[in-house]
Amino acid sequence: MATAAVLGATGYLGGELLRLLDGHPSLELAHVVSKSQAGRPLAEVAPQLGDARGLVLEPSSAAVDADIAFLAQPAGEAMGEVPGLLERGVKVVDLGADYRLKDPAEYERVYGRAHTDTAHLGEAVYGLPELFRDRIKGARLVANPGCYPTATLLALAPLARAQRIRGPVVVDAKSGTSGAGAQPTATSHHPEAAGTVLPYGTPTHRHVPEMEQALREVDHGDPPRIVFVPHLVPLVRGLLCSIYPTPAGPFEASEWERLFREAYAGSPFVRVGATPRLSWASGTNRCFLSVQEAGGAPVVFSAIDNLGKGGAAQAVQNANLMLSLDESAGLTHAGFGV
Amino acid sequence: MATAAVLGATGYLGGELLRLLDGHPSLELAHVVSKSQAGRPLAEVAPQLGDARGLVLEPSSAAVDADIAFLAQPAGEAMGEVPGLLERGVKVVDLGADYRLKDPAEYERVYGRAHTDTAHLGEAVYGLPELFRDRIKGARLVANPGCYPTATLLALAPLARAQRIRGPVVVDAKSGTSGAGAQPTATSHHPEAAGTVLPYGTPTHRHVPEMEQALREVDHGDPPRIVFVPHLVPLVRGLLCSIYPTPAGPFEASEWERLFREAYAGSPFVRVGATPRLSWASGTNRCFLSVQEAGGAPVVFSAIDNLGKGGAAQAVQNANLMLSLDESAGLTHAGFGV
Amino acid sequence: MATAAVLGATGYLGGELLRLLDGHPSLELAHVVSKSQAGRPLAEVAPQLGDARGLVLEPSSAAVDADIAFLAQPAGEAMGEVPGLLERGVKVVDLGADYRLKDPAEYERVYGRAHTDTAHLGEAVYGLPELFRDRIKGARLVANPGCYPTATLLALAPLARAQRIRGPVVVDAKSGTSGAGAQPTATSHHPEAAGTVLPYGTPTHRHVPEMEQALREVDHGDPPRIVFVPHLVPLVRGLLCSIYPTPAGPFEASEWERLFREAYAGSPFVRVGATPRLSWASGTNRCFLSVQEAGGAPVVFSAIDNLGKGGAAQAVQNANLMLSLDESAGLTHAGFGV
Amino acid sequence: MATAAVLGATGYLGGELLRLLDGHPSLELAHVVSKSQAGRPLAEVAPQLGDARGLVLEPSSAAVDADIAFLAQPAGEAMGEVPGLLERGVKVVDLGADYRLKDPAEYERVYGRAHTDTAHLGEAVYGLPELFRDRIKGARLVANPGCYPTATLLALAPLARAQRIRGPVVVDAKSGTSGAGAQPTATSHHPEAAGTVLPYGTPTHRHVPEMEQALREVDHGDPPRIVFVPHLVPLVRGLLCSIYPTPAGPFEASEWERLFREAYAGSPFVRVGATPRLSWASGTNRCFLSVQEAGGAPVVFSAIDNLGKGGAAQAVQNANLMLSLDESAGLTHAGFGV
Repeated sequence: MATAAVLGATGYLGGELLRLLDGHPSLELAHVVSKSQAGRPLAEVAPQLGDARGLVLEPSSAAVDADIAFLAQPAGEAMGEVPGLLERGVKVVDLGADYRLKDPAEYERVYGRAHTDTAHLGEAVYGLPELFRDRIKGARLVANPGCYPTATLLALAPLARAQRIRGPVVVDAKSGTSGAGAQPTATSHHPEAAGTVLPYGTPTHRHVPEMEQALREVDHGDPPRIVFVPHLVPLVRGLLCSIYPTPAGPFEASEWERLFREAYAGSPFVRVGATPRLSWASGTNRCFLSVQEAGGAPVVFSAIDNLGKGGAAQAVQNANLMLSLDESAGLTHAGFGV
Repeated sequence: MATAAVLGATGYLGGELLRLLDGHPSLELAHVVSKSQAGRPLAEVAPQLGDARGLVLEPSSAAVDADIAFLAQPAGEAMGEVPGLLERGVKVVDLGADYRLKDPAEYERVYGRAHTDTAHLGEAVYGLPELFRDRIKGARLVANPGCYPTATLLALAPLARAQRIRGPVVVDAKSGTSGAGAQPTATSHHPEAAGTVLPYGTPTHRHVPEMEQALREVDHGDPPRIVFVPHLVPLVRGLLCSIYPTPAGPFEASEWERLFREAYAGSPFVRVGATPRLSWASGTNRCFLSVQEAGGAPVVFSAIDNLGKGGAAQAVQNANLMLSLDESAGLTHAGFGV
Repeated sequence: MATAAVLGATGYLGGELLRLLDGHPSLELAHVVSKSQAGRPLAEVAPQLGDARGLVLEPSSAAVDADIAFLAQPAGEAMGEVPGLLERGVKVVDLGADYRLKDPAEYERVYGRAHTDTAHLGEAVYGLPELFRDRIKGARLVANPGCYPTATLLALAPLARAQRIRGPVVVDAKSGTSGAGAQPTATSHHPEAAGTVLPYGTPTHRHVPEMEQALREVDHGDPPRIVFVPHLVPLVRGLLCSIYPTPAGPFEASEWERLFREAYAGSPFVRVGATPRLSWASGTNRCFLSVQEAGGAPVVFSAIDNLGKGGAAQAVQNANLMLSLDESAGLTHAGFGV
Repeated sequence: MATAAVLGATGYLGGELLRLLDGHPSLELAHVVSKSQAGRPLAEVAPQLGDARGLVLEPSSAAVDADIAFLAQPAGEAMGEVPGLLERGVKVVDLGADYRLKDPAEYERVYGRAHTDTAHLGEAVYGLPELFRDRIKGARLVANPGCYPTATLLALAPLARAQRIRGPVVVDAKSGTSGAGAQPTATSHHPEAAGTVLPYGTPTHRHVPEMEQALREVDHGDPPRIVFVPHLVPLVRGLLCSIYPTPAGPFEASEWERLFREAYAGSPFVRVGATPRLSWASGTNRCFLSVQEAGGAPVVFSAIDNLGKGGAAQAVQNANLMLSLDESAGLTHAGFGV
């Protein structure tokens, strides 16, 4: 039994990690770190868990001794943790943004703070297993993608690789409010969020550079320009990207669908088919893709659980690969019908 | 044209007041006060308004010159405003709790702060027009009831007056999240509130003493004991009280319904009939009552818009009475079907 | 006082018409027709109305005698009503699709049935007052636009007229479920609809030909190709179109915003500004437009209430124009803050 | 590996059974029956499942050969299936109402149809494992309780057994809309259901006789009278009962809580503690109980997933007991934090 630590256990991604590890057959939760709730029994903080195994929230990662650590802390804290953890032989999956962008200058431009661990930026692998599975297997440090890039890249990568698209690519994303995190804010206040569809993130959302960097690796050329507009919708879990690429030649939905099926033949978590419902992905590591035609042009729908394949479940998938476990271990449960 | 001021214009009750005054035929908004947003044009702060009349948010009530002032500020601020306003001849409807309880000791016990304007406690009239219409007509200072007491008292008062009930009376209330105010909190955070029905307020909700005091005035005796449990439900506007009184004698739904019809014959905003939907009350000053039998016992459903009859619309009704306007002025619009 | 009839009173558009007429200062409801509920008192069928004026639902339009009739019946019934109504001197606003498309062959292609009143197709005016106000003023028969075309055309028309855009124009629309009508269906079943964002209407939604026809009138040329994908979102009222046009030259958000302001200077129901909330439009005849930049490209947000400006309120606006009433009569109320 | 059949696979309880069996370590789905969708591959009908194992929906139970059959068909069909299944040695968990009431005359009174399999009524065991675990272990035929009785009885049984309560007991229940089933209806139409809290089921809900019968078995006396009023609330999964019993003596919340802890010491799926959230129960077999005081009187909150412990998950728990599997097999996953 491999052992795991979760840092930042009281956020939504942290909570989802705890839930998934609670049912994992070969990865056991050994340490839980939370600055804000240190000292409290995990069973009290997270009553939805099946078995909190007597764990108590630790104030820091100082005592963490585990095969792998999941970092789900507030933005910018990971780069302070990673050097120490790696040195002590703990592999790391960072669910935040600190190790996603290769260029520290771009990191500073996008996130507004200097990168303090550029030494490990080079070895960090972008943790989208369906695109970079082999690199992840050998990695000590994996940067888990953002929820929007996960849904978008799974749709665009096979098309970019096969030279089927050019820019602009309009990505109109609709996300449940859990994507905004556990901290109450004006936009996620129920009376505000429940009655509207709220576009945000213009003129440039932080996730776009990460999408472009990954596409560049996939098609070894200039990535298509992405016009990305996320919208908050009044549901809790779930993320749908409606993607309108400019086709590079004649478009045939069935041909694109075949490209998707081929690209993901060995990837158990990507399904290709009819219009998906977000409930199918709820609580799972699955991504549902559907290619359709609208007004003579292509539209691709990509549906995930923003906390699942868009976060914690994908982090577990990465950990499985890094620890030479079955890629699907702990992630085989089906989604909700409703 | 009478003139009005709104103090505390950026909360939900304040916003609803502005909306109602925007359509009022004989009461004109003349001053808007907001400490937090002072100096900003009203049109910018409240783009949902039809016509902001060039008003700018004022930092204090110092310059307020109007026939009536609506106080919708944070809890405890009203008692600092009332003496000055009354002295300058401005009548006051306070939408908060400062003037609801007659006994300053009970106020301190319930709200945790001393009352600083006991001089005006005596003259304040409890602003439930269907019960105390005549007193309101002559008042300078009206204490607008809480949303829960409004829905509960409209159901219980006719029964108490006719000696049809005794205690305990179980009041199981379900409120939309706008009742919790505009300030983001953990319980009203969309990811938390959207997926649950959250009971709160045990062992004693602050609105219970107000209900008991009003019932005591109505039946001139010991009011029945009220077991009151509010629940947050995942909708924005609307409040349903399911009320289970202990009948004082044989119970006949049709007889209770007749009592209601008689009690509210002259009250245009109370409707008695079949199971109501909350959308019918949405944006209105209406209360829908329905008497039914469950397991041989009575249950009364009382439905209002917590921001409407449960707050801002009732405040306008009170102002109409205080200013000798038509009681229904500005409040005649119908509810939503959906 | 002019008089009005509502045909199809028990659907959602019919219900919203009744609500708006209930508060109209110069248009009085005189007849209500409903095949399915004929003989029932209106007060019983629509308890949310303020005053049902003793009206009883009539089984047909045979006895309808009024200045104007609003047709909100099931699809395809209007063309059976219009000839008789016009002959009896009753002006008509049809809220359905029967008189929107000028070409009967296209009507048959899009709606799957032959048009049976081609005689009046020619004189029918497309009822988008902000574009065709003068024609509406002189019309006997107005075809009220669909909800999606209303939101889309108000955004695109000024741009098309000023030659600022070309195709493709991606219109990603998000609609509340009331847009699907009062008839229960699998996709609008609460357990299905509440947990997902459901794209539908591919490959071609019925509203696209109507958009193209209107744009052709506006820019006197080939309209830009529209890639239109509607999505059901889990709220009841409200429609947001996120519109991604291809700019025909350099794009400057402020310049486009100025175009909008100029185009709608005389139109009281169109507001141009920051990102709108759907609640602002709730229950109103207003459209909120916002121009922003995303990834270097333009995005225009257009928000309405699908039952309001997208249906019943716009129908009342058209009726006002046709009857030489104040264009805003009965439509001046403000939207909800929440 | 034991084998299972699901009859009525396309309803919500059927779908949840398929989801749970998909992850069950020692019970394998072997047959799926659906009259309405017979002949279609399961993978197509239920894309949310992980692995449909090549199963095709069968038109009837004729070919069903399995250790246990779950009956989740429309009301009244089970009693036509049970005799044949039992004869062929297939154990049965019926998720419907046909075998819950012992008295065929009461069945006819409550459900409006004669019972056609009175021969097996006697041996059917009421499948609430926390109360009747031993009987279930030896049963061939188990009647799975309704969702409301499950939540109510888990709260009331320990109190009734210990003589702590008398009637009336007010049970104010709030249920998500999935409890109403997969068939679209007017009350579960999204535009209606999303904006209201809808009380229904007065004067007597069908689940009350079932509650009374079970309480009679528990306390061997006259059960307390139950005043039961269910309400539809605008969420999909989840059921909260707010229970107001009349205490039979002095009430002490901590003493009642101790009673609960003792009663459920050996029951892994019942948790006793603070105010629960419905998301904690989502997708699980868990029931969360909380005892509190309101206005000096007791209130007990009982929260479950109506499709989980209130239906499919409890059916799997019953099957585990009947097949001598681990009671928790396939049911150990944790609930959602959000």
